[in-house]
Amino acid sequence: MRNFDEDNITQAVLDSLSGCAIPRTRQISEALVRHLHAFVKEIEPTEAEWAGAIAFLTRTGQMCSDTRQEFILLSDTLGVSMLVDAINHRFEEDTTQTTVLGPFYVEQAQDFPIGSPISRESDGPALLVEGKVEDSRGNPIVGALIETWHADDRGFYDVQRDAGKSALDMRARFHTDQEGRFWYRSVVPAAYPIPNDGPVGAMLDAQGRHPFRPAHVHFKLSAPGFETIVTHVFIDGDPYLDSDVVFGVKDALITKLAKTDGQVSPGGHEVASDTSLLTYRFVLPDKPRN
Amino acid sequence: MRNFDEDNITQAVLDSLSGCAIPRTRQISEALVRHLHAFVKEIEPTEAEWAGAIAFLTRTGQMCSDTRQEFILLSDTLGVSMLVDAINHRFEEDTTQTTVLGPFYVEQAQDFPIGSPISRESDGPALLVEGKVEDSRGNPIVGALIETWHADDRGFYDVQRDAGKSALDMRARFHTDQEGRFWYRSVVPAAYPIPNDGPVGAMLDAQGRHPFRPAHVHFKLSAPGFETIVTHVFIDGDPYLDSDVVFGVKDALITKLAKTDGQVSPGGHEVASDTSLLTYRFVLPDKPRN
Repeated sequence: MRNFDEDNITQAVLDSLSGCAIPRTRQISEALVRHLHAFVKEIEPTEAEWAGAIAFLTRTGQMCSDTRQEFILLSDTLGVSMLVDAINHRFEEDTTQTTVLGPFYVEQAQDFPIGSPISRESDGPALLVEGKVEDSRGNPIVGALIETWHADDRGFYDVQRDAGKSALDMRARFHTDQEGRFWYRSVVPAAYPIPNDGPVGAMLDAQGRHPFRPAHVHFKLSAPGFETIVTHVFIDGDPYLDSDVVFGVKDALITKLAKTDGQVSPGGHEVASDTSLLTYRFVLPDKPRN
Repeated sequence: MRNFDEDNITQAVLDSLSGCAIPRTRQISEALVRHLHAFVKEIEPTEAEWAGAIAFLTRTGQMCSDTRQEFILLSDTLGVSMLVDAINHRFEEDTTQTTVLGPFYVEQAQDFPIGSPISRESDGPALLVEGKVEDSRGNPIVGALIETWHADDRGFYDVQRDAGKSALDMRARFHTDQEGRFWYRSVVPAAYPIPNDGPVGAMLDAQGRHPFRPAHVHFKLSAPGFETIVTHVFIDGDPYLDSDVVFGVKDALITKLAKTDGQVSPGGHEVASDTSLLTYRFVLPDKPRN
């Protein structure tokens, strides 16, 4: 194989994959080569533009650290993460809709007893979250694992705060009770820009896009026999609901915060005045039987 | 914009680019989104595969350093670099064909007088390079800048050698003489594997591809009034000429090494016995008139 030009190089690269022993690797590699070459042939990059793309990808990788995943941000802001999410969650319509995990999930969050406050460092407006987890037939799922995480009232996650604050905050794991319920206390999260001091922020700038996500609380829900669900619940009224920079908003995931009069919540929990209530009913799909 | 699924998310991301003020940025961004989404829709990655892709890109960025550009290697091994090269060099057929710059070019190479030896550290087999630079009408180009670089007889570039050796070696800048000629002494380069201890090496392994490039000498040639040419000259007989891992070989760039009898070269230079002669005539395209 030699003498490659614009007309024959794509086939030459495809031919070079003929010794690939793993069918899925070969399928992905071939598709990558075809689509990547089609992209390059369409835009006909100058050599300076190609060098700019190399530099952009290099900076993106070098921006990644234990608390920052710039390539996930890139995938999120190009709509790829939500596309992959949709492809992997072709569930019945009456189960809870899914969204991306996002770059702020932490596996090692702490277990809390139901009802615990999970925000130690923020003095933002009080939030009471009351959730219920059911199967698609309306039966409560007992002992489901709830992982939840969210930003504070200034729009920052724990991992984005200055050093000196508690390492993990506003994130917790709970298990549902005998009626499939869980509840916890925290602070009302604010809308926030995704970290935009890196290459992805520069890309959004160049594309004329703002970096904001509407206010939301993340949930990951899992229980034996059911599909694991990763989702957000968004707060109604947020100005960014129609322009979420990562394309995550679905109407069925938006809930109106209720204000309390400082007495007892619908779930029967005592609340101080001005506490906002976020309630949501999650429905997990059954795992397909083999 | 909300409620995105597999059918509408691509258009939603395209719509988000409507505020982009720079036409070229918008064109590239739109093409990227269309082709990237088409790729994802074709392969339908699992979430684990998507996470694997994120990890691969992250490792690729983090492998880059002052002397290692893993994203260029990725572009090279996927045939993208040669495609970009072809798109940017649609010259007349009778001018010298171009190839990729590759990851081992160094801008700050040293100027040498014509005829100098440029390999200080290697005791490999002796090489005499005799080149001529002409325009497409056969006139010599006087004072053309020749930048040349190559690997040693074990297949390593200077920047890949152990610390303690000279920083720059087997790379030099010359200017052609009054007859458009240049010549220098060095060692015969060997075929070599591209650096394959990183993510690109792992990709090649998974794809069942070897990492080798056939033996070659790099040249970058520039002169006022002419297009700059980046190319390689390959050594005939190399076993990897038909499977260059970066798809760079063109028949017109292959030359047979001549053996000398230890007397005088065709260019009139004294040579020791067993010196190999590499001769090549370079033809630079005229710069288009504005």
